[in-house]
Parts: sequence; C-alpha cells; structure tokens
Amino acid sequence: MTGHLAVVGLGPSDARYLTPEAGAALADAQSLYGYAAYLDRVPVRADQRRHASDNREERARAAEALKDAAAGGRVALVSGGDPGVFAMAAAVCEEIERGPQNWRALDLTVIPGITAMLAVSAKIGAPLGHDFCALSLSDNLKPWTLIERRLDAAAGAGFVIALYNPVSRARPWQLGKALERLRRHLPPATPVVFGRAVGRTEENVSVVTLDEANATAADMATLIIIGSRDTRVVLRAGKTPLVYTPRAAVEVNA
Amino acid sequence: MTGHLAVVGLGPSDARYLTPEAGAALADAQSLYGYAAYLDRVPVRADQRRHASDNREERARAAEALKDAAAGGRVALVSGGDPGVFAMAAAVCEEIERGPQNWRALDLTVIPGITAMLAVSAKIGAPLGHDFCALSLSDNLKPWTLIERRLDAAAGAGFVIALYNPVSRARPWQLGKALERLRRHLPPATPVVFGRAVGRTEENVSVVTLDEANATAADMATLIIIGSRDTRVVLRAGKTPLVYTPRAAVEVNA
Repeated sequence: MTGHLAVVGLGPSDARYLTPEAGAALADAQSLYGYAAYLDRVPVRADQRRHASDNREERARAAEALKDAAAGGRVALVSGGDPGVFAMAAAVCEEIERGPQNWRALDLTVIPGITAMLAVSAKIGAPLGHDFCALSLSDNLKPWTLIERRLDAAAGAGFVIALYNPVSRARPWQLGKALERLRRHLPPATPVVFGRAVGRTEENVSVVTLDEANATAADMATLIIIGSRDTRVVLRAGKTPLVYTPRAAVEVNA
Repeated sequence: MTGHLAVVGLGPSDARYLTPEAGAALADAQSLYGYAAYLDRVPVRADQRRHASDNREERARAAEALKDAAAGGRVALVSGGDPGVFAMAAAVCEEIERGPQNWRALDLTVIPGITAMLAVSAKIGAPLGHDFCALSLSDNLKPWTLIERRLDAAAGAGFVIALYNPVSRARPWQLGKALERLRRHLPPATPVVFGRAVGRTEENVSVVTLDEANATAADMATLIIIGSRDTRVVLRAGKTPLVYTPRAAVEVNA
C-alpha cells in the first residue's frame, strides 16, 4: 500500500495563516476532499481531483478519503482551523477504528493549523493567557445536560472558556442558555469576546460584559471567549480594548 | 508615535510551522526581543538588533520591547508556540496596563502560532477531538491547591487535559502529584500522551496508560495530554497507536 492521507489544517480564512507544512501537503496531493467552503480556499490546479461535500457529512467524507488513500492515492482532507479541534482528524480516526484492517496500515499525517480560539485571542490581546478550556456548544453529539455540567465545572474552577459551534440554524437557543448558566458562576462584569470571521473582510472582534452579552450577536462563524474572574480589560483611546488573563492566578472561593 | 510591537508566535521548533504572517512580522522588524532559545530560531540579519533574555525575565522583556516601540521602533517580540498560550502576549498586556499611558496608544499586533498541544495532538491522532482544557502545572504564579482544584474539575467533568510546564528543575514533584490526583477521577487504562520536542530531531511522542504514566518521562520540553473516559486507542501493526477522542460524548456519572 503506497497511498497517503494528510488531514490538513488551513487555519482561519486567509492564506497568511497557512503553514508551510500545510501548503506542502496540499501541493503534494492528487485528490482533495473537504467541506465545500474550506475546499474553495485551496487554489485550483488542473491535475488535482476535488471532492467537495456538505458540512454535515463528516464520517462519509472521512471514509471516502480513506478509501482513496487505501487504493494508492495521495490524498489531502482539508479542515478549517486545526483538524484536531472539533474537526476532521477525530472523524478520520473513528473511521479507521471501525473500517477494514488495511486502513490501519495507511500512512496518515495530521497537519496542525491555527484554531479559531487562538486567532480570536490574538486579535483582542491575550484572553487565553492562563488556564482555559475549549467546549463545543453543539448538542448534536452529546446531551445538553453534559454541556451544562462542563460549563459549571469550567467556570467554577476559574478556567477561561472558548465556545465553539455556539449557534446554528438547528440550534438557536443553546448559546443563550449557556450564557445564563455562566451568570450563576461569574460576576456581571466578566469580559466576553465575540470573534467573527477572523481573516475575512467581514472580520469583527468585540468585547462586552457577561451581563450585556447577547446570544443574537453570534452566528455559525463566531467563536466566543468567556473570561474568568482574573480576566482584565485595558481601555485604549480610539482603539479596541485589550482583554487579557494574567499569568498569575489567585485562589477563589466559588 | 509611529512605533509598532508585534508579539510573534513561532510555533514548534521547525520552520514548517511558521505562518506567513509571522514570517512577515519578523522580516519587518528593526529589533527582535525574546528568550534566547526562541530568538536563535530566527535567521540572523545584519540590519536587525537582537535582544536575548533569560527564560524567567518575562515582565522585563515585555517592558523593554514596549519601550523600544514607544520610542518609534518596529519591534518583534518572539514566543515559542502561540504567544497567547502561557506565553508573552499576557506579559505584554500586563505591562501595558501598569505602564505609562502612551503605551496604550501603541500599535500592537499579536500573531498566533501553532501551540504545543495542537502539534502533539496532530502527531498522535486527535486526542483533543472533543472538549478539552489547557492547564499550566507551574505553581510559581498560582497556589498548588488551585491547580488541584482545576485538575479535579476538568477530569471530573470529562475534559481532556493538556498539561503545559509539567516539570522544571525548581518544580520536580508537581507532575507526579498531578498524575496521582487524576487517578482518583479516571480509569487506569486512560490514555496519556507524552509529546517531547515536536519539530526537533529528538522529537518523541508516545502513549501510555494513566496507571503506568511516570512523571520522570517528562522534562521542560514535554507537553502531556491526559485523555477523558471517551478517549480511545487504535493499535496499528508496526506504527505508533492512534489516540483520539470521538466527536460524540455520552453523559458519565463521576
């Protein structure tokens, strides 16, 4: 078996975030698989086959890419951000575990990328400057009660929280509920960062307080960072405030 | 004031991880600041001044870079990995908050990089494939009791845990204590990934179970990922096993 599968992180929507390693993997591929919106970010080359799929078909997309590689193809499966963070690398591993034995013998590479929380954090200062967690608000693949339990645990213990997948057409109420839940643990003045479409022309990163944070400000392209009790805001005349979490943390009694 | 400060994430120790955005910021700088080991990764150019400092002098280094920029310099302050994750971006924000008012008017850019947990995760599969947290084990800047509380909260609620700064010459016992603490919450077979020096020739990424995990396997260049109850290992003949956390999670009773 001489095939190869690279699961490639493109980072946020701009070529300035694409690492040389990711660029080389894309250039080396004979066929490219991915959600159409991510695949559109890879420059077209006549000698590469392209297989675009819908956002929801992660398992099927992973299986198709694995089949192609098992047949000897040099395959790249693209992912926005980092493929290991709520993205395609886990779907590929799931398919390898469930699939035919020869998929385990495949040459597999996962190529990391700048994930959304790092890009948003950089735009506003350093809100992830101390202990933090990343949590998907999608209850398609886990019960809502578990999401609430994780919000309680993270906020109660003083982690900054990055929320992925905050909202979608099929999940309109989850972010509002999550903000409500977080208000039980955190002071009203806790900074909340809304980062939208980083790297695109419509990019927008803003900061509000937890008591004024409104779920309607988010859409599918938004990443939200909820500060801890330690997170600070530095006002700057004529500029977006800086938001950061100091390197030193003190014990709090929740 | 025409100066500019870019806080630049170099990613792991290999140029294949350096984003075009970071490369451009380094090329644009008149002076470079950083911990010596990171600064050594930036190609020398005769027209750039270099200011190397010791690992521990983060606040002083940030202040020096800010002073230089406030005097009109185009300054790059380099960080390994991502500058926003247990690194220089928070130190710069702290100095801006404490420093003279004109530092707030400075043109400041933070440029994200591939942080260690993403690089280690990619090397072994997708252990960060679902909800996870990043926690620094250094008790230089927070009490050990708070670290224990965060370990309890994260493991109890089912987060995968990435441990930064697991050990140093001055902090020899913390990782052993942390592993002991995690054994209260997680089954003995929970996968633990030790990722060392990713991107360097001595790179080594391995997986053991929580009951056999030994703190002496780690040093200052190690990043550790502790799985959740959902994290799985896929054995592959003649290859490193894959470790991944499925996209779907089920409720657990701790």
